[in-house]
Amino acid sequence: MKKWIRNGTVVTASDTYQADILIEGEKVVAIGSNLDVKDAEIIDATGYYVFPGGIDPHTHLDMPFGGTVTSDNFYTGTKAAAFGGTTSIIDFCLTNKGEPLHSSISTWYEKARGKAVIDYGFHLMVSDANDQVLEELGAVVRNEGITSLKVFMAYKNVLMADDETLFKTLVRAKELGALVQVHAENGDVLDYLIKQAIAKRQTDPVYHAYTRPPEAEGEATGRAIALTALADAQLYVVHVSCAEAVRRIAEAREKGWNVYGETCPQYLVLDITDLQKPDFEGAKYVWSPPLREKWNQDVLWSALKNGILQTVGSDHCSFNFSGQKELGLGDFTKIPNGGPIIEDRMRLLFSEGVAKDKISLNQFVDMTSTKVAKLFGMFPQKGTIAVGSDADIVLFDPTLKRTISVETHHMNVDYNPFEGMVVNGDIISVLSRGSYVIRDQQFVGQAGAGRFVKRSTFARP
Amino acid sequence: MKKWIRNGTVVTASDTYQADILIEGEKVVAIGSNLDVKDAEIIDATGYYVFPGGIDPHTHLDMPFGGTVTSDNFYTGTKAAAFGGTTSIIDFCLTNKGEPLHSSISTWYEKARGKAVIDYGFHLMVSDANDQVLEELGAVVRNEGITSLKVFMAYKNVLMADDETLFKTLVRAKELGALVQVHAENGDVLDYLIKQAIAKRQTDPVYHAYTRPPEAEGEATGRAIALTALADAQLYVVHVSCAEAVRRIAEAREKGWNVYGETCPQYLVLDITDLQKPDFEGAKYVWSPPLREKWNQDVLWSALKNGILQTVGSDHCSFNFSGQKELGLGDFTKIPNGGPIIEDRMRLLFSEGVAKDKISLNQFVDMTSTKVAKLFGMFPQKGTIAVGSDADIVLFDPTLKRTISVETHHMNVDYNPFEGMVVNGDIISVLSRGSYVIRDQQFVGQAGAGRFVKRSTFARP
Amino acid sequence: MKKWIRNGTVVTASDTYQADILIEGEKVVAIGSNLDVKDAEIIDATGYYVFPGGIDPHTHLDMPFGGTVTSDNFYTGTKAAAFGGTTSIIDFCLTNKGEPLHSSISTWYEKARGKAVIDYGFHLMVSDANDQVLEELGAVVRNEGITSLKVFMAYKNVLMADDETLFKTLVRAKELGALVQVHAENGDVLDYLIKQAIAKRQTDPVYHAYTRPPEAEGEATGRAIALTALADAQLYVVHVSCAEAVRRIAEAREKGWNVYGETCPQYLVLDITDLQKPDFEGAKYVWSPPLREKWNQDVLWSALKNGILQTVGSDHCSFNFSGQKELGLGDFTKIPNGGPIIEDRMRLLFSEGVAKDKISLNQFVDMTSTKVAKLFGMFPQKGTIAVGSDADIVLFDPTLKRTISVETHHMNVDYNPFEGMVVNGDIISVLSRGSYVIRDQQFVGQAGAGRFVKRSTFARP
Amino acid sequence: MKKWIRNGTVVTASDTYQADILIEGEKVVAIGSNLDVKDAEIIDATGYYVFPGGIDPHTHLDMPFGGTVTSDNFYTGTKAAAFGGTTSIIDFCLTNKGEPLHSSISTWYEKARGKAVIDYGFHLMVSDANDQVLEELGAVVRNEGITSLKVFMAYKNVLMADDETLFKTLVRAKELGALVQVHAENGDVLDYLIKQAIAKRQTDPVYHAYTRPPEAEGEATGRAIALTALADAQLYVVHVSCAEAVRRIAEAREKGWNVYGETCPQYLVLDITDLQKPDFEGAKYVWSPPLREKWNQDVLWSALKNGILQTVGSDHCSFNFSGQKELGLGDFTKIPNGGPIIEDRMRLLFSEGVAKDKISLNQFVDMTSTKVAKLFGMFPQKGTIAVGSDADIVLFDPTLKRTISVETHHMNVDYNPFEGMVVNGDIISVLSRGSYVIRDQQFVGQAGAGRFVKRSTFARP
Repeated sequence: MKKWIRNGTVVTASDTYQADILIEGEKVVAIGSNLDVKDAEIIDATGYYVFPGGIDPHTHLDMPFGGTVTSDNFYTGTKAAAFGGTTSIIDFCLTNKGEPLHSSISTWYEKARGKAVIDYGFHLMVSDANDQVLEELGAVVRNEGITSLKVFMAYKNVLMADDETLFKTLVRAKELGALVQVHAENGDVLDYLIKQAIAKRQTDPVYHAYTRPPEAEGEATGRAIALTALADAQLYVVHVSCAEAVRRIAEAREKGWNVYGETCPQYLVLDITDLQKPDFEGAKYVWSPPLREKWNQDVLWSALKNGILQTVGSDHCSFNFSGQKELGLGDFTKIPNGGPIIEDRMRLLFSEGVAKDKISLNQFVDMTSTKVAKLFGMFPQKGTIAVGSDADIVLFDPTLKRTISVETHHMNVDYNPFEGMVVNGDIISVLSRGSYVIRDQQFVGQAGAGRFVKRSTFARP
Repeated sequence: MKKWIRNGTVVTASDTYQADILIEGEKVVAIGSNLDVKDAEIIDATGYYVFPGGIDPHTHLDMPFGGTVTSDNFYTGTKAAAFGGTTSIIDFCLTNKGEPLHSSISTWYEKARGKAVIDYGFHLMVSDANDQVLEELGAVVRNEGITSLKVFMAYKNVLMADDETLFKTLVRAKELGALVQVHAENGDVLDYLIKQAIAKRQTDPVYHAYTRPPEAEGEATGRAIALTALADAQLYVVHVSCAEAVRRIAEAREKGWNVYGETCPQYLVLDITDLQKPDFEGAKYVWSPPLREKWNQDVLWSALKNGILQTVGSDHCSFNFSGQKELGLGDFTKIPNGGPIIEDRMRLLFSEGVAKDKISLNQFVDMTSTKVAKLFGMFPQKGTIAVGSDADIVLFDPTLKRTISVETHHMNVDYNPFEGMVVNGDIISVLSRGSYVIRDQQFVGQAGAGRFVKRSTFARP
Repeated sequence: MKKWIRNGTVVTASDTYQADILIEGEKVVAIGSNLDVKDAEIIDATGYYVFPGGIDPHTHLDMPFGGTVTSDNFYTGTKAAAFGGTTSIIDFCLTNKGEPLHSSISTWYEKARGKAVIDYGFHLMVSDANDQVLEELGAVVRNEGITSLKVFMAYKNVLMADDETLFKTLVRAKELGALVQVHAENGDVLDYLIKQAIAKRQTDPVYHAYTRPPEAEGEATGRAIALTALADAQLYVVHVSCAEAVRRIAEAREKGWNVYGETCPQYLVLDITDLQKPDFEGAKYVWSPPLREKWNQDVLWSALKNGILQTVGSDHCSFNFSGQKELGLGDFTKIPNGGPIIEDRMRLLFSEGVAKDKISLNQFVDMTSTKVAKLFGMFPQKGTIAVGSDADIVLFDPTLKRTISVETHHMNVDYNPFEGMVVNGDIISVLSRGSYVIRDQQFVGQAGAGRFVKRSTFARP
Repeated sequence: MKKWIRNGTVVTASDTYQADILIEGEKVVAIGSNLDVKDAEIIDATGYYVFPGGIDPHTHLDMPFGGTVTSDNFYTGTKAAAFGGTTSIIDFCLTNKGEPLHSSISTWYEKARGKAVIDYGFHLMVSDANDQVLEELGAVVRNEGITSLKVFMAYKNVLMADDETLFKTLVRAKELGALVQVHAENGDVLDYLIKQAIAKRQTDPVYHAYTRPPEAEGEATGRAIALTALADAQLYVVHVSCAEAVRRIAEAREKGWNVYGETCPQYLVLDITDLQKPDFEGAKYVWSPPLREKWNQDVLWSALKNGILQTVGSDHCSFNFSGQKELGLGDFTKIPNGGPIIEDRMRLLFSEGVAKDKISLNQFVDMTSTKVAKLFGMFPQKGTIAVGSDADIVLFDPTLKRTISVETHHMNVDYNPFEGMVVNGDIISVLSRGSYVIRDQQFVGQAGAGRFVKRSTFARP
């Protein structure tokens, strides 16, 4: 059965126009103003924007962290994502030193299998770049379609890689055409500051921010960039939070280097004062990097607007306040890092960005979908509304208002960091490869319907 | 009669995909993989890229300059443009102090009427921002659809405006939603250096470059940017030629300002040594700003690649070597400034940029067409291949090679600055609003078929 | 009769040490720890710093401005300077278009003659760089010892020079070895903003600041620097007030250019909120450039500390509140620009800079005296305590406290912008060429004792 | 017996003047133009500059490196230093992990004892900042007068410290008032590049440079600066060789941070092409960081001229070509790093800097002596000619010419990297604490006459 989306305003990363969209099976097959279509289910999109489905480049589902596990798994997480207009995610596959990569990848396949309601890919964490790992990466990138490699410069003694590992990964990524992602904070500095804070009994959540100063993020960003330039490779800096990091990325881009940056809604909307909320409420706002002084928000918006940063990911990493965030009562280092954003990423960016005229409608699509698809080798299968592409499509009503709340969200977590915030615009329906996942704001998808996306190697967008 | 472009690879600023395009009358009405079309003329695009028609944001046709007139008028110039894949131009309408703007505009309408073979718009030069001019600008921008205003910071005592004029124009442009363009060189400095050179009998063409140092361009660029920031307006720096100017634009964009930059093929491919050619050959390479030291080319390519510059215009301003350029024999100041590029702009950028992997295919479309249309208020009528847009379409064969030469070019000028250069890729056919202008590399257009395009006011792309 | 300063701590731009100083006539003839001296008047400096006399590079005495005249002339002004530890000033000699330079200089000699109690030199304003002026500058610089030339980029239609004038002045200065000074604000922009404010009846003193935005200072600073680089000349930016200007100077110095910057105590201590004081009090704080947002103070201190700015001048330009500042009641443009600082320049810098550990003691001497002498060709006659140098010497007690007040100051003006401020350290005695001007905080000098200082041409310090 | 230096031109970091200097015992006791002196040995300095003795902040004497030992010990090295006008050195005391600091220091005292002919101090290397080391540093800094701590960011698995060590050292240095020095190259990157080169049999000396790219120095410099800012400490970057590092230092200084930089004559005069000399001659030019592309020399001179870099050290580290450098035949990694410069440091800087008008005479004194003394806590005992300071004095004849050569140098090494270079100016006599070490270009000093200098803690100069 064909689907025929009629009378909507199609928006891509470049174009905005009135047209109907014809879907056959999983693909868009035609776009036109006066198509001659028979036997199609008509979807009325009058008054709606018709967006390519969002792609969240940064999620952590079913992930162990600090002795607990994120509260969203591939079912609850992807369902919530779909509610928020996201039709693909790329989740981070953790690895363990000494364990073969394919074993870690298998674990991650297992996590997703039978659960994901939308399509997904994996980034692969590299924590140890020994010869065996570097060798195995060839197969991973070329055969598995896992073409992005994540290196942590923070979380000392846990996830952190040293510069040798980062540099070897970059050199290998250059050979293989993989995009290297970095969590850019200087782990040695953070480790020291955290120990000092604890030694001084500075245990409240806000010390999470005080012990992760922006200069440590700027430094690590600059270092990763320098190593990338030396390896002539390509770099994607995840969750950029501050002016210091933006400065280094701007500098690199002016030099013509292949350096890209992502920020997240939390850094665009929240700030360090949220960490100071009483009654341990601050724990809900513990991300790494931490929320920054409010003026950094302007820097980030400017960077998005003028192309210094390219994408907006969620860094979704949900933990319940009760029982999980509370692990850090009396010791901020025990607060699991992260928060639930997968569902509201696109709404927040639309409302705070487009509706407030900080970015354009096409930029919104680019940052949440198209550029992600391009940078991570999912394009043009994903990331656009074009003939031949997957019919991953969102109907969006810009006239609605919605109050973000734990009462109404679909993430498996007992709070929402944006609780009570009213956003402009809302998602009506969502199709994944031509099938409804969300229809008139109701979930109609299926666990396991989501497929793994083999991604291509890196090509400059 | 409909037209049906089949089996081509459609390329827009964002997308690249296989699809057929259906044209009805002047518009694209459908794009699809399996359209059910009857009664359409089929255009076989197998093996071709199908680009949106190029838009040249910077042409000077039938323009008086230094006692002579450019050798291309709206007929020869637009015909040559069409041969080169350009389907719209925006030409600079000069004004004279004291003359009402509408009178100058009328003159320009007259120049184009009955001659242009493709569509065209006008930028309006502002040389004197007195109250009457500022008042009249309201009507020009709002009613005439002339929504970009050019201010010269060089050519002292001829075209040059002072900072008061520039600033008033920016303030007024902010009110009206016009985009201000600047020729950014410090005219006072240039005037002095030129007089000194002449006084020392330094009269060869290369002194044109020596008397227009890059720091003078960097300075003026920085000044225009500062005034734009103060007026909270929007600025487009034409023909950026050097690192000093790129630095200032990068700085402005990092601050989030609405500042854009254009470069031209001549700055990407030629350099100051061309001005040193013997037998007065250097006169063929006299542009303002002048050709620079070769290393600036890398800076410009990097800036294009990473979005610090957005567009590539031709600054087409043709003068015959014989009788025109020769006016400057023995006195470089008498050499008419400019050269013939309108026909080869797109070929050069494709061959030097895309084929050499300095920019992507989508960036090529963006720089030569889409971003121009967006910045100058022609979008989405022009600048894309999308349902509802004008069917301005280019079929491009990337496998062809072509030798650029005065022997084969169609510009009305007796030399080509890129003589003998072999480029990869060539234009096969060109449609303007659904009608062939170039068909299988033959001109089939008509003088006067081109229409004036009323442009919208500025919106951030 | 010799003078023998005993047991003090001698401080120069480089050294700090215990020693006695022997003065014969007007000169220092020996410095030693155990000098064998007979027949000398002993000056006990126990517990005191012994500084070289301050040199104020920026004063406006007896100067017409906006229909009135500064309230301090060469007698009251230099007397107050001496009270504040300053033993030389360089005053700005204004010129008038069309009037020969020597005529303007004669006027200024007349103003000083018989009045100055300390030594003085003149900077010469250049407002029109026609051939006659450029020619006459040769004699002025070489014969008169007036080796610094001031160009105003602001005060449109009054003092402002265009870029041609500035550039010609720089080129000529390069030939002659003169140092060019600029008042760097974009006069065209300011003129427009001021007219707009008045048109909107925004007439309070604070609009003086709002109509002179920091970006206009940054722009002009950058422009003057670019022109200096093009002329390969030397530039001194007077009264730097904001981050935007510091940025440009830092950039120039990193490139190795001969660019120097001065700031003033008012920019280090006061801020834009002072202009908002009620009852027209704000008029007391009207300087050009205006006082800035407070955070700029940190930028200026950092720039002083790390050598990006080199000197601290007063820009002394005093007008009585009553009858003079009041001219601007109801129209801020009528408020005479400037304030009385000549007396407190050194105290303020010592107390806010040295006592608060923002700059070192040697830097204090360098900024207030030595570097001034070096940049302006008075060294080593002035600006140091060394054998052979003029015995211009200040005894300073760092343990005293003093409350700055109109009640106790010696400037001929009816208010003090730092009224009530308590500073650490005070001047005890001051010698000019070996003779007391201030002795135990009493004036013992003589009108007319000050001599004109013929200055050398520029040499990099 | 007193000494009376007559008729010379005294030059300090700030002043230049004609005066006589009276020395009693080890100290300068008077400076004057007409001193009444009896019973003094007269030293005629007519026509000479009288400089404060040079202080070399960067020497490696009697140091084990890569299985061999530097060819100069404290006798030959300091004697050669004295011939070159240097009267104090600060040598690097290496430490070994696990060995108590006082033990390492004892070793270094032993090396110097009975050998040094001029005064000396020690920097202490920190390679492991464990609690015991951090504790012991208190005594070292406070009691031993060893107030500068060196951290290597390069030489992986040998000298290199990780960021934790560097950061802890900086934090501790802040507490103690120590100045932290870094060898700033990214050791991880270098290690990888070196292994790759060797694996590809790229074994010639020039690969030493290719495997130590400037970006790796820029990166490490930026990292050390960021950590310094986070610790609010003070940093001295040794042997800055390239534009990338200068950029980071300039950036830091503009922010007001306590960051200082040293370069060396080799980087100002030699370049990467020297490493390409045939017959293994390139091995003579193996320094770390390596010699760079020639254009970096201009960047370094500009940085010295405008105060972005502050000092010039020698990094003297001599190895014979025969038997030592030759260890690296067929494997550049085995070439001992370093070269003999201690004797020619001042001559080279005078001739290339002062005589070519790149820096001023006072800057020469500041960079080679005064600023070194200030930054490293030897001032005012050392580093100036002032009453009360040590009579460390150099008589310098600027009219002489000298050809640098292994034939005539006094370093214990079989080649000179500046062989055959003719320099302007030469050292005539040198006094150390009032006693001749060099008299009329003959050595008259004594092994063991040099004393250890206890240095003060850090104070901003």
